[in-house]
Amino acid sequence: MKQTRRKFIASASLLAVASAASANIFLEMEPIKKKQISHHVFFWLKNPDSKEDLKKLVEGVQTLSKIETIREFHIGVPASTEKRPVVDASFSVSELLFFDDVEGQNIYQEHPVHQKFVENYSHLWERVIVYDSKEI
Amino acid sequence: MKQTRRKFIASASLLAVASAASANIFLEMEPIKKKQISHHVFFWLKNPDSKEDLKKLVEGVQTLSKIETIREFHIGVPASTEKRPVVDASFSVSELLFFDDVEGQNIYQEHPVHQKFVENYSHLWERVIVYDSKEI
Repeated sequence: MKQTRRKFIASASLLAVASAASANIFLEMEPIKKKQISHHVFFWLKNPDSKEDLKKLVEGVQTLSKIETIREFHIGVPASTEKRPVVDASFSVSELLFFDDVEGQNIYQEHPVHQKFVENYSHLWERVIVYDSKEI
Repeated sequence: MKQTRRKFIASASLLAVASAASANIFLEMEPIKKKQISHHVFFWLKNPDSKEDLKKLVEGVQTLSKIETIREFHIGVPASTEKRPVVDASFSVSELLFFDDVEGQNIYQEHPVHQKFVENYSHLWERVIVYDSKEI
C-alpha cells in the first residue's frame, strides 16, 4: 500500500511537472493581436565616420528600452548583405520596436524617456526616417 | 506484477510527456546569436488605390513565408500612427523578416520561391526599398 501510494505521488509529481511545462508553453505562445505594430526608425549621423558619435547614439537608443509599452526591442547597423540597387545601407543606426497597438506607440512617443532621448541625442543625426506598420 | 508494470508504463508516459514539454520550452527559448538579421522591405504599388493589387501583392508576399531560413515573418500596411514629418506612411505593403545570419538571407534571396515571387508580382510595384540590419 505504501509502495502504491509512493508511486501515486511520483505519478502526481510528474503530472504536475508536465502541467507546469505545458502551462509555460502556452505562456510562450503569442496571443493573437499582440505585437501588432512595428516601429522602425533609421538614423543617419551628421558625422557618419565618427565611431564615437555612433557609440553615443547607440547608448541613447538603448535608454529607450525602458519604456513599458515596448514588446520587442532591436538595435542594428547595416548588415553585410549584397549591395543591390534596392538596398539602402547608408543609414548609421536602426531601431526596431514592436508594440501591441497604436496606443502603445503613442505612449512611447510622449514618454519622458523618449523626449529626453530626442533632447540629448538629436544633435547627432542629420536625418531620420520612421516606418510604422500594422500587421495584417 | 501486471498492475505494477502498468503503473510503471503510466509513469514512464508521464515522464515522456514532461520531457517532451520541457524540450519544447527549450526550443522556444532563443539561443544567443539567433535572429540577428532583420530584412525590411517596403513596396509602393503602381496603383496605390487598387485594393485588388494590394490583395495580390499581400498574397505574393505570403508565399515567401515557406522559405526555410526565415525565423520570423511579418506583413504590414501603414499603421495609423501620428503623421509626423519624419514618418513615411506612403508605402503600400511592408515585409519584415528575421534571419539567423547573412547566409540565411542569401539563401532566401536565391530561393526559387523568392525568384518566382519577383517574376510573378514585380509588375505590381513601382518602387521597393530594402533595409538590412544586423543586431548589435
